[in-house]
Amino acid sequence: MRLILLGFGVVGQSFVKLLLSHSTDLYNDYGIKPKVVACADNGGIITCDQGLDLDRLLNVKKKKKSIIHYGVKGNRSEILDVIENIDAEVVIELTPTNIVDGEPGKNHIISAMKSGKNVITVNKGPLALEFPSLMELAEYNRIAFKFSGTVGGGTPILEFAKRCLKGDRIISFEGILNGTTNYILSKMYEGLNFSEALQDASEKGYAEKDPTLDIDGYDAVAKLVIASNFVMNMKSTMKDVRREGIRDVKPSQVLNERKKGNAIKLIASCDGKNLVVEPKPASMKDPICVDGILNAITFTCQHSGQQTIIGKGAGGMETASAILRDLIDIRSTIRS
Amino acid sequence: MRLILLGFGVVGQSFVKLLLSHSTDLYNDYGIKPKVVACADNGGIITCDQGLDLDRLLNVKKKKKSIIHYGVKGNRSEILDVIENIDAEVVIELTPTNIVDGEPGKNHIISAMKSGKNVITVNKGPLALEFPSLMELAEYNRIAFKFSGTVGGGTPILEFAKRCLKGDRIISFEGILNGTTNYILSKMYEGLNFSEALQDASEKGYAEKDPTLDIDGYDAVAKLVIASNFVMNMKSTMKDVRREGIRDVKPSQVLNERKKGNAIKLIASCDGKNLVVEPKPASMKDPICVDGILNAITFTCQHSGQQTIIGKGAGGMETASAILRDLIDIRSTIRS
Repeated sequence: MRLILLGFGVVGQSFVKLLLSHSTDLYNDYGIKPKVVACADNGGIITCDQGLDLDRLLNVKKKKKSIIHYGVKGNRSEILDVIENIDAEVVIELTPTNIVDGEPGKNHIISAMKSGKNVITVNKGPLALEFPSLMELAEYNRIAFKFSGTVGGGTPILEFAKRCLKGDRIISFEGILNGTTNYILSKMYEGLNFSEALQDASEKGYAEKDPTLDIDGYDAVAKLVIASNFVMNMKSTMKDVRREGIRDVKPSQVLNERKKGNAIKLIASCDGKNLVVEPKPASMKDPICVDGILNAITFTCQHSGQQTIIGKGAGGMETASAILRDLIDIRSTIRS
Repeated sequence: MRLILLGFGVVGQSFVKLLLSHSTDLYNDYGIKPKVVACADNGGIITCDQGLDLDRLLNVKKKKKSIIHYGVKGNRSEILDVIENIDAEVVIELTPTNIVDGEPGKNHIISAMKSGKNVITVNKGPLALEFPSLMELAEYNRIAFKFSGTVGGGTPILEFAKRCLKGDRIISFEGILNGTTNYILSKMYEGLNFSEALQDASEKGYAEKDPTLDIDGYDAVAKLVIASNFVMNMKSTMKDVRREGIRDVKPSQVLNERKKGNAIKLIASCDGKNLVVEPKPASMKDPICVDGILNAITFTCQHSGQQTIIGKGAGGMETASAILRDLIDIRSTIRS
């Protein structure tokens, strides 16, 4: 199975480590013999028709910061060329999320689809901005388009909704889809104010230098859009979501709710029509009311009632395990 | 698709209601056109080659207590005869759980398998006592054997483990698998003693007249055996589980743990070798620490970390939705 890997940060490197450590299982259990025939990072793209040496790839990245020093040279402008013209079954798009115009991920995905290659991505930007048109393009080109890792990291939230609830109907869902804000709100529940909690999150490495995407709810909005399209067949994009971040949550509000047995959480909700991300009180007895960096989502179903899935919503190895799941799924539909 | 329905209590009736209310969806989405060609309850068994009238069946049961008054008579001794000799694709075994010898469910299941019929059951007894040999018999006869509703009621715990975590490896799992004891322990957390909490559970309809199966941990043991066999390929039966019920949990212990931020829960655990059901403290911050009649299970995976599923572990319509899921699964593997 020939793979093109676009983006080689923490998730990409974890994925390659998984390929290395699981090569026997992958072949025996699923018939997958992966060959990474091209790999790109900030420095450029390198290709090798026989498959890159994955140990060497990891080493070069670690020691020289970019895979471009692997020995076969290229440059960024060639990426689209490589996607279109190199023989491969799957393009794995792992460039950073950009929720303004979705680039460069969006163009990578579109090129891959148009050249008949299956696509796996954990990049939320292109999906949050253009889910309906990307799905259409995938269907038109009859390729598989998988994005398990975009919602919940390694926690298989999207798969659960599609595969485990057959014969039932999901009426609505709501969830905590961003670990950074949940960590901050958990610390505020313990008595810190917003700035103190944010600083604590930064020190622990849970918040980015510019935490806007998390704090103001954009990351949760992106995940809500993806889940609502995938799970409930909505045709929504980011502009359809009513959004409020946690910047204005006051310690007095938190304390007030705490006295009533509630915690304030950043809740993303979808009832099949309305999409909302906003801070609101949840009962501490509600399974959705998770602590720290956890993510949680509750599906309300017509017959089987409410089902909640909880797990870590991020992490390199966790998200890499979602990519591997997607790859196994694609393998079951194509010949390698 | 021709079905034989053995047992027509709350779950059986809920299932028939689902078949009635979903007949259009079942045909359009999954190609299932169900015909109940035989149905048994305490009164005996009735058969109809063209398919029983399901509305009439529900009415007769409601008004006259047994389906035997439907109009076609039979008696209990004919059940095995019917299972073996009537043309049908699926036998749905819904007689009450018996953890002493598994009967009459065990014989029903064995007869169905030997006559080449697929089997769906929500009856924990036969599986808890003889999981390995029943699976062997199913494989030998090349029939599908499904039991989604035995663990978690409508909550798709078993499916989650098998379908959503591909490419990863479950190292261990632990869970709260019995709603009655969890309700009692939740009330003890609020300050009641064991007898008061048990009485409260009885009044609310959460505890049976003879609550031994729940209180002494047998129900949780049965579910643990089923999950450990299915999820981790163990070859275990009830006798392999170390069991301790909640009868001896003292208010002082509960209070002591509460002060430390913990609650005492009846935890069923499997690490791939040891199977244990016992009351023990769990942090209130742990997602597994659910309130009231909920069930929860946490799978610890090699790469994707810990995943918790929470839902109602019982209920007629919820459990019926699990049977429908199993039926849809079987349909995808056979022609009707």
